[in-house]
Amino acid sequence: MLVDMTAEPRDSIRVAVSTVIFSLRAAEDGDRLMLPLVRRTRAPHLDSWALPGGWLNLDAAASRTLAETTALEPSYLEQLYTFGDVDRSPDRAIAIVYWALLRSDRVDAQRSRADAPENVKWFDVDALPPLAFDHNRIVDYAVDRLRNKVAYSRIATGLLPDEFTLTELREVYEAVLGQRLDPSNFRRLLEGSDELVPTESFRTGKHRPARLYRYNA
Amino acid sequence: MLVDMTAEPRDSIRVAVSTVIFSLRAAEDGDRLMLPLVRRTRAPHLDSWALPGGWLNLDAAASRTLAETTALEPSYLEQLYTFGDVDRSPDRAIAIVYWALLRSDRVDAQRSRADAPENVKWFDVDALPPLAFDHNRIVDYAVDRLRNKVAYSRIATGLLPDEFTLTELREVYEAVLGQRLDPSNFRRLLEGSDELVPTESFRTGKHRPARLYRYNA
Repeated sequence: MLVDMTAEPRDSIRVAVSTVIFSLRAAEDGDRLMLPLVRRTRAPHLDSWALPGGWLNLDAAASRTLAETTALEPSYLEQLYTFGDVDRSPDRAIAIVYWALLRSDRVDAQRSRADAPENVKWFDVDALPPLAFDHNRIVDYAVDRLRNKVAYSRIATGLLPDEFTLTELREVYEAVLGQRLDPSNFRRLLEGSDELVPTESFRTGKHRPARLYRYNA
Repeated sequence: MLVDMTAEPRDSIRVAVSTVIFSLRAAEDGDRLMLPLVRRTRAPHLDSWALPGGWLNLDAAASRTLAETTALEPSYLEQLYTFGDVDRSPDRAIAIVYWALLRSDRVDAQRSRADAPENVKWFDVDALPPLAFDHNRIVDYAVDRLRNKVAYSRIATGLLPDEFTLTELREVYEAVLGQRLDPSNFRRLLEGSDELVPTESFRTGKHRPARLYRYNA
């Protein structure tokens, strides 16, 4: 870990869908309005009667809506926050927002596909136009979360291929944090930890060959 | 309509799931943190850029969770209310509650099936035990809604078979409203409206034959 930060609590929310079902059942003094209940088999409220229902699979819904609108499959997906201000939208909607990481090579692969959606465009997070609804606020919140998170986690694994040079890793941190890092300090910090494992491969190009690393599993 | 009541507003809520996707894109001055946005093709915020996402199909989720827990298929299903008090559950859940109507003959059919769930039991709405979570409050709210609604709508169609006698229809209203109705007044009100259509069939039994009616389509 580069910086020792306290992990924030998970803001994950769960949505239950329950139903009150009415029916009529004959009784001695005529029909009675009845409803079915289900006995709970786990805590909390073990053995109490409860309305029939269940949980929405929000993670699956996030992946599905993402694939439908952008044809992208992220390498990391986490629930960010639930926005429910009454004035956020004219149609009285709750927005359950996820944030996701996508490796650059997967973006390129998606953009070269014939069926890539035409109405999707990539924007620099620091140069956004005014967005619909409260989406500028949501993006700001997500960027803050990402910048906090990258400092103490392996979040870069979601943005890089499996093997990378120390320079490439530093550039990820610089792009996410929005600030330059000293190359020597960065190299010393990483080489002194057991986070990275050197491989026997090298990146070659116009500069001198650079060793490829991978994260320690 | 038996009683002229003002219709209440729809409390239906919609849940959007959106995702902030981060990736790195090479720029002239190094990698930049980028995210993809989607151009809106409808109001509100037509042509604005927005986060990729979509709507949860809550109606489908209600039907699915109902079938999974009770094996029941209601004849009417409507979103009731969304309960989100912070103290309603220890696991920080929003409950999106539906209310449904089930015809008595379908209840009997379900209860006679070999795979009928054992932990489901029918309760009189006026004689409920203490339920899990805030479910007593939710049931009270649903009963109020039903009692208001039955007075000015064809809600009985969800509780009766397609054809029924005037006595059967009156008993539905009495069960739902929790009060006796005068048979003569009830018959006069219904026969004076164009809500019901008499059929050529009769219910026979120990009493004199009673004509069957159906709702006017």
